[in-house]
Amino acid sequence: MSSAEHPAVERVSERDLYDFTNAVLRAIGLGVAAAEVTARVLVASDVRGIASHGVARLAYYVTMIETGAIDPRAAPVVVRESATTAVLDARNGMGHPVGVQAMTLAMDKAARHDTGIITVRQSNHYGIAGYYAMLALERDMIGLSLTNTHPVVAPTGGRQPTYGTNPIAIAVPTAGSVPFVLDMATSVVPRGRLEVAARRHVPLALGWALDAQGRETTNPEDALAGALLPLGGGVLTSGYKGYGLATAIEILAAVLPGALYGPLVSPMWTEGSPSNLGQFFMAINVAAFDDPPAFKERVRDLLQRLKESPRADDAMEILVAGEKEQRATIAARAQGVPLDDAVVSDLIRIADRYDVPAPSGLRAAAR
Amino acid sequence: MSSAEHPAVERVSERDLYDFTNAVLRAIGLGVAAAEVTARVLVASDVRGIASHGVARLAYYVTMIETGAIDPRAAPVVVRESATTAVLDARNGMGHPVGVQAMTLAMDKAARHDTGIITVRQSNHYGIAGYYAMLALERDMIGLSLTNTHPVVAPTGGRQPTYGTNPIAIAVPTAGSVPFVLDMATSVVPRGRLEVAARRHVPLALGWALDAQGRETTNPEDALAGALLPLGGGVLTSGYKGYGLATAIEILAAVLPGALYGPLVSPMWTEGSPSNLGQFFMAINVAAFDDPPAFKERVRDLLQRLKESPRADDAMEILVAGEKEQRATIAARAQGVPLDDAVVSDLIRIADRYDVPAPSGLRAAAR
Repeated sequence: MSSAEHPAVERVSERDLYDFTNAVLRAIGLGVAAAEVTARVLVASDVRGIASHGVARLAYYVTMIETGAIDPRAAPVVVRESATTAVLDARNGMGHPVGVQAMTLAMDKAARHDTGIITVRQSNHYGIAGYYAMLALERDMIGLSLTNTHPVVAPTGGRQPTYGTNPIAIAVPTAGSVPFVLDMATSVVPRGRLEVAARRHVPLALGWALDAQGRETTNPEDALAGALLPLGGGVLTSGYKGYGLATAIEILAAVLPGALYGPLVSPMWTEGSPSNLGQFFMAINVAAFDDPPAFKERVRDLLQRLKESPRADDAMEILVAGEKEQRATIAARAQGVPLDDAVVSDLIRIADRYDVPAPSGLRAAAR
Repeated sequence: MSSAEHPAVERVSERDLYDFTNAVLRAIGLGVAAAEVTARVLVASDVRGIASHGVARLAYYVTMIETGAIDPRAAPVVVRESATTAVLDARNGMGHPVGVQAMTLAMDKAARHDTGIITVRQSNHYGIAGYYAMLALERDMIGLSLTNTHPVVAPTGGRQPTYGTNPIAIAVPTAGSVPFVLDMATSVVPRGRLEVAARRHVPLALGWALDAQGRETTNPEDALAGALLPLGGGVLTSGYKGYGLATAIEILAAVLPGALYGPLVSPMWTEGSPSNLGQFFMAINVAAFDDPPAFKERVRDLLQRLKESPRADDAMEILVAGEKEQRATIAARAQGVPLDDAVVSDLIRIADRYDVPAPSGLRAAAR
C-alpha cells in the first residue's frame, strides 16, 4: 500500500510482463503478430525506465479500442512507394506494429540504397519514439523516428495547446557499451509531470507551463488548465527554438504523410474518434559514409570525451543520451521491471475485465 | 558616431554590400566562383537580419586565410559517393562554397532518388545554416543543414566548453508567402550575446551560461570564462535535451564525415591551424510523399493555425520560424542592409588593407 504522494513501486519479471501484455492485447482484439510487437514495444519502455509510455498506457489503448477509436485488426497499406521512400496508411490501427513495419521498411531500403524514409498516416500513439530508432543499431545504421501527438503545447506568444510534445528519437551505433539514443519530447516536460505535481500538491518549476491566460505558472492545477511550454521555456530563454523544432516535427511526421496536424488533432482521450496521427522514420546506412567500425569507434570516443570532461559538481556524473535508460534496463533485468502500484491496479482491472490471468507477482502486488 | 552601449546602425544597399564583399574575397585569394557564392551567403545573412553571421565575419575569414588556417583556393573533392549519398572533402577551403556544392548535390540526388544526404569534412565555418536548407525551397524539397562548430557549450553536469553551438536548419516550402525556415543554434544563446552584454555592462538572463566553476551566472565576464548552456538551460528545465540534440548534430555533421569533433575542435580564432569542421546536408523530395501543391497548402494551413491561435498577450504576435527573417529581408531591401558601425569600421580597415574600393555609403558611414 502507498499514498498518492509516494507511490510504491512493485517489480515484475520482464517475461511475465511481456506475456501478460501480449495476452491483454490479444484479448482486446489484436492479431498474433500485432500483439507481440506491441507488447514488445510497451515492455521495452518500462524496462528502459520510461514508465509513462509503457504498460501504463494499456488502459488508454483498451479504452480507444473499446470505443472504436482504434481498430485492433487494421492492416496497414503502402499507398506510395519508391526505391528510398514510402507512405503507409495505418488505417487507424495501433501505432506500434505499423511503426516497426515502417522502420523495418526504411532499413531495408537503406540497406540497398543507403537511405530510407517512410511516413505513416492514420496512425495512433506509438509509445516511445526511441524503440523504432534503436532498431537501426543492430544493422549499423543511424535511426530516426518522429511523431506528432495530441496538442498540449502552446506556441511562443500563444496560450492554447496547438501542437503536441512531438518527440524526436535518434539512435547511433557505437563501439562502446552504451549506444547513443536520444529520445526526447520537444516540450520542456511531458504533461504527466504536471499531473504528478497536482496529485502530490507540489509546485512546478518556472518555465514549464502557462496558465489559461498565458502567464508562466508554478501551480500545477493552473498549468493543467493552460498549456506546456516548448523546450527552452519562455522567450528570454529561447523557447521559440523548441517551438520551431516541434513545428518541423509536426510538418515531417504529420503534414508530409497527410495525417491530422496541430490543433486539428483531438485531445488524447477522445473516445470513439480516430486520432489520425502521423510518423516519420528514417534509416541512414553508415557504410555509405565510412567503414562502420571506424565510425563507431569515433562515436565511442566522442561520447567518452563528453563524459570525462570536467564536472560542475564532483558528485554529479556527466551522462550521454541513452545511458540512464541503459542502466534502468540492467536494473530491470536483474531486479524486475518497476511498476507504480496505480499502474498495477489498472492492469489487474484490465486483466479481470478481459479474463486474462495476471502474473502472480502482479496479483501479489495488488493485494 | 555612437557609444559602445548603443551601436549606431548604418545602411548600405544589398548590391553595394555584395559587390564589396565579393571584391574583398577575391582580394584575399578566393577564385571567381567561390568569392561569388561566399559573398551571396554572407550578404544573405545580413539581409535576413542575422548580423552575427554576415559580413561581420569577414574579419575572421581574412585572419584565417592570412595565417594559413583556411586555404582560399582549395577545390573540394568527392571521396565517396552512391546514388543517394556522398562524402566531400573540402580540403580546408571556405565553408560556404562547399556548402552550396554539397546541398546542390543532395538536391540533384533527391531529384532522381527522392532523398540525398551529403556530408563534408575538412571544412570551415559556413555562415548561416539556413542558407543551404533554403536552397531546397525552389525545388519543392525539404532541406536540412547541420554543422558542428568550435566548442563553447558545456554538457549537462559539465563546466567546460566541449562542443559547439551546433545549429540545425530545416526549410519547408509552403503555399503561403513565408516559407518555414527554422535556423537555430542548439545552445540557449550564441556566445556573441555574452560578448555584447559584457561590452554594455548588462547582466545575462539566468539559464544562459555557467561560470568557470560550473555555476549558473548572470555575470557576462564570468560567463565568457565559463561555458554556454545547451537549449533548455539547467537540469530542472531539461537542458540535457539541448545537450543531446547538439550531440546528435556533432555525430551527423562531424563524426560521420570524419571531421574533428567535440573538444578536439580548436577554439574559433586559432590562427594558422585548420578547423576541420564537418557538415551534413539533406534534401527530401516532397513529390515522393505527396503532390507538392497539396503538401504546401497543408503547411500553409498549419502555420496559419499556429499564428492565429489565442495570444498570451494581445500586443505580442505569434510568429513561425523564418517569419522574422523574412520581415528583415523586406526591410533591408527597402531601406538598405543594416550594419553596426563597429562592423563598418572593420570593413573599411579590410578595404584599405587590400586596396578594395568600399561603397560610398560605407565610407560615409565610417566618417
